[in-house]
Amino acid sequence: MTRALYSLCGADPQNFFSPHCWKAVMALAHKGLSFEEIPTTYARIRQIGGGFSPTVPVLEDNGRLVSDSFAIALYLEEAYPDRPSLFRGEGGKALSRMVEGYSQMVVHTAIMRIALLDIHAVLDEGDKAYFRESREQRLGKTLEEIAADREAEKAAFPAKLEPIRHMLKFQPFIGGESPLFADYIVFGAVQWLRVVAGLSMLAADDPVMTWFERCLDLHEGRGRTMTAA
Amino acid sequence: MTRALYSLCGADPQNFFSPHCWKAVMALAHKGLSFEEIPTTYARIRQIGGGFSPTVPVLEDNGRLVSDSFAIALYLEEAYPDRPSLFRGEGGKALSRMVEGYSQMVVHTAIMRIALLDIHAVLDEGDKAYFRESREQRLGKTLEEIAADREAEKAAFPAKLEPIRHMLKFQPFIGGESPLFADYIVFGAVQWLRVVAGLSMLAADDPVMTWFERCLDLHEGRGRTMTAA
Repeated sequence: MTRALYSLCGADPQNFFSPHCWKAVMALAHKGLSFEEIPTTYARIRQIGGGFSPTVPVLEDNGRLVSDSFAIALYLEEAYPDRPSLFRGEGGKALSRMVEGYSQMVVHTAIMRIALLDIHAVLDEGDKAYFRESREQRLGKTLEEIAADREAEKAAFPAKLEPIRHMLKFQPFIGGESPLFADYIVFGAVQWLRVVAGLSMLAADDPVMTWFERCLDLHEGRGRTMTAA
Repeated sequence: MTRALYSLCGADPQNFFSPHCWKAVMALAHKGLSFEEIPTTYARIRQIGGGFSPTVPVLEDNGRLVSDSFAIALYLEEAYPDRPSLFRGEGGKALSRMVEGYSQMVVHTAIMRIALLDIHAVLDEGDKAYFRESREQRLGKTLEEIAADREAEKAAFPAKLEPIRHMLKFQPFIGGESPLFADYIVFGAVQWLRVVAGLSMLAADDPVMTWFERCLDLHEGRGRTMTAA
């Protein structure tokens, strides 16, 4: 049995920083499945399975390829039903899309504006040009223009996590008493920020930090294999 | 069998506008349970069950009192397990707290700033004084000072619903193919805005409006028993 996860890396092949790849890593660890994490630059994504997907993560499980972190979680839930559940039922599966919506549309957009130049800095030379061109086209500004608002974005960041603080008044994880894929969705975003730019904008006693530290402890401290920026 | 829901009303006892009460109304309707909705001004909340709860909704079900919309949903799920589920499993239950976090910390705070004077205007004379004093103390400004930013808040409102639009790319309801309590959590907020101030800030072809119209159609159009402001 071979199982591999193609995961985005920087110039340092052990610098795994992508939020979406971290979601897949934590989903595999949650299911207790061993896998090799294969460092993949943007330029090499197109070589996976002869151009199977324009993005990573891509999971290769016994010859089957699955791309997209949410699709990987759904695949793992179906393929390994006897392992710990990532969703705990159909309601959890459906509502995870709403958590993804919050994470991507609120948390990711803020992190992008905070850490764009930091992300650019960790990429290898070939990827730097691709990243600059694609992001500047998507956002309609140069990376430096976006980074000019960085301090204001950092100051505004803690307030954007209020939905998480509300939830934490009732339970230790988004999944309830124990984590589910929904936790890994938000964990991936915060881990991304931690790895590329650090979490200095969050107070140590912020309940979100307490939850995040709990997530870093999961699965033999898998999240701690990357150090903070 | 008697079943009653104490529900916040304005000077017009048929003006049910509270987001939290609408969550409970929809949860009862989802379970197919008949109930009498009892118009309750702020001043009369303390008379329910001899001062049982400082807030409505309060459900009275065969002599048992339950307050708080989320607690009411949990109670209904346990008391009526053979009726359609409000959560579809433990994952759905846990993740609903995250949806509540988004709804209350992002959507409610925006609506408060948009509709504060409109809410004040629909209350009866006794409640008006209570509402002004408690909200001005909580927010540290006069109602009129907060309302001064109303147009900017209205303009910023559609962007705050991006998490919902993301989710709707994958499914028609937060609950998936059919609604769950998580839908009613967000529905309650949007219904509140619709009833007290109208939804003119949302385009008719906004996917959020399409979802909201689907929710208004549910349970024999229960949400449509209130007209828009």
